[in-house]
Amino acid sequence: MECPVTQFAHFTNPLYLDSGRILEPYTLAYETYGALNADKSNAILIMHAFSGSHHAAGVYEGEQKAGWWDSLIGHKKGIDIDRYFVICVNAIGSCYGSTSPMSLQHPSQIPYRLDFPVITIADMVRAQKILLSTLGIDYLKAVIGGSMGGMQALSFAQLYPKMAEHIFAIATTHCTSDYVIAAHKAMSEAIMNDPLFRAGQYESTEVAQMKGLAIARMIGFLQYFSPQTMQRKFSHRYVNQDGLYELFGRFEVMRYLDYNTQSFCHYFDPLSYLYLAKALCIYDLSLGYENLYDALKGVLSHIHIISFIDDTMFKVEESRQIAEALMYLQKKYNLLELQGSFGHDSFLVQVDLYDDYIRHILNS
Amino acid sequence: MECPVTQFAHFTNPLYLDSGRILEPYTLAYETYGALNADKSNAILIMHAFSGSHHAAGVYEGEQKAGWWDSLIGHKKGIDIDRYFVICVNAIGSCYGSTSPMSLQHPSQIPYRLDFPVITIADMVRAQKILLSTLGIDYLKAVIGGSMGGMQALSFAQLYPKMAEHIFAIATTHCTSDYVIAAHKAMSEAIMNDPLFRAGQYESTEVAQMKGLAIARMIGFLQYFSPQTMQRKFSHRYVNQDGLYELFGRFEVMRYLDYNTQSFCHYFDPLSYLYLAKALCIYDLSLGYENLYDALKGVLSHIHIISFIDDTMFKVEESRQIAEALMYLQKKYNLLELQGSFGHDSFLVQVDLYDDYIRHILNS
Repeated sequence: MECPVTQFAHFTNPLYLDSGRILEPYTLAYETYGALNADKSNAILIMHAFSGSHHAAGVYEGEQKAGWWDSLIGHKKGIDIDRYFVICVNAIGSCYGSTSPMSLQHPSQIPYRLDFPVITIADMVRAQKILLSTLGIDYLKAVIGGSMGGMQALSFAQLYPKMAEHIFAIATTHCTSDYVIAAHKAMSEAIMNDPLFRAGQYESTEVAQMKGLAIARMIGFLQYFSPQTMQRKFSHRYVNQDGLYELFGRFEVMRYLDYNTQSFCHYFDPLSYLYLAKALCIYDLSLGYENLYDALKGVLSHIHIISFIDDTMFKVEESRQIAEALMYLQKKYNLLELQGSFGHDSFLVQVDLYDDYIRHILNS
Repeated sequence: MECPVTQFAHFTNPLYLDSGRILEPYTLAYETYGALNADKSNAILIMHAFSGSHHAAGVYEGEQKAGWWDSLIGHKKGIDIDRYFVICVNAIGSCYGSTSPMSLQHPSQIPYRLDFPVITIADMVRAQKILLSTLGIDYLKAVIGGSMGGMQALSFAQLYPKMAEHIFAIATTHCTSDYVIAAHKAMSEAIMNDPLFRAGQYESTEVAQMKGLAIARMIGFLQYFSPQTMQRKFSHRYVNQDGLYELFGRFEVMRYLDYNTQSFCHYFDPLSYLYLAKALCIYDLSLGYENLYDALKGVLSHIHIISFIDDTMFKVEESRQIAEALMYLQKKYNLLELQGSFGHDSFLVQVDLYDDYIRHILNS
């Protein structure tokens, strides 16, 4: 696979948001893999998760780490880029190049910060649809996303029922639970309570030192990992050189959290975290509808719901509720309940559990 | 029931701690309910949970709120104070009157703060045993505790095998899981990252404003409540007067967390939180033994393990591991797995699920 390159699409027309506010101008960062065929019938849209980016596959020139879904997307992989043109867009509000709270407002050239409008999952989807239109794509073989990406995929099925043949909504839900909302409340408070946050007026250079962002990520890990994953990974081991009876002595799981949450502060933005948490919390496919049945009645795509038994963030029951509504409505759907071993993160690390299924559906 | 009164026992002899350090002098705050009989054979020791206190039952004069286990302890209740003499001691390290990080060192009269020694669950138990000795009590009808109190109860069975007839270990474990350790890591970091914490040099009057302590409590709630409890209680409702598309608009679950965690800062101490979290994280009955079987081989008390199916903090599997070890060792034990509806907190709010069992065992 060639080294992918981030592309940017700049839009001067306003993006009308669910909140009633507008973004104008706005930018979308994205990557593509494979080639669009002559009749533009082989495009697949990939949607990323909360902390993910448009860098879904391949390795940047001079780097070593591959995109977050590299095991799924590539030559002869589940999503075969010899056959399909794959596009992944950084969600509006996220911090990897698309318009976000730290973007400069027009014409003042002052960053939005807390003046950034609230973004919804549907807003993210609408922006991606506009990008597809500018690329001349009005049909998608599939829309595929996990976690917050799965929310976007389902939202896509609701907003643009005629556009995608298949929707794969993986490790996700139709409506964010109070439990997940509560977790994101704690994460957001941890960010805002950081002494460097200063009501959003931090300098970008300070973010790497913002412990509050690291704490938010720690709370996130409590949702992404299952208790079983942690036990298997860390086995109650104590860091050898740390004293058991020292207050700040650590278990291995603590060292892991220290290391992996500090590194998070080198590539994520606190305000993006707050805005994405807001989008995730207010996500509800049924909002503005009578109920979930009413919300899904216009769906025409074939919906593939993939969930993991040990996912404690988005539970199998939530996937079943989507499936039950689709069954009642006599829609085309499949529900896969997989025996993951990594909790919510199974969708990222156990691609082997479902890549054959995706390949089969795409190629059949 | 008469209004209970907090009593204080002051000890000038050193308390030898697992860490190798000593506490000297030290104080224990405690309450008693009912009367000790002539042959001192009717005493029951109650052990409190992480944020609990020695105020287990009754209502203080001029107050309205009853002790945390008032539905279990009282006249004609599961633990009948007409028959039993009940004592509950504030754990060393906690902030309700027993020696804690904010206590004054002798002779400097400077608070310990971060110089306080690390306390273990076994240390808490040893201190309580010393208090019982000064009261002339060398036999206990039962030792009963939930959550961190259940850890103490099991530790009591291990340390003083001949002293208690019955041990009730409720909603607890034999060894803190990596998942629970990870959660307490996030809580501790949230406390320490508060701008007012200042490496433990905060003023007591500042604690009510310490958002970091409130965030720790929020993360705690994610363990104490089950996702189902939250969904039942809050039903994804949005606070009416808060704007759905305002960044700081709130769901009801967020308002609940704001209110109940801010109030927590009016009665809990940040340094006590850190030290109790440490004690909870390094708790492991098997520490210093070959394994759990070896750790429990000396037990003589009848062990009653009560767990709740929907407890996500201390899982039923952990209780089963204790039961399996006791079964293998041919010890007297019972394992009750109850269908709670409030997650870990079921042990506090669904006393009706197990009070008859305790009554039956005590009176048979």
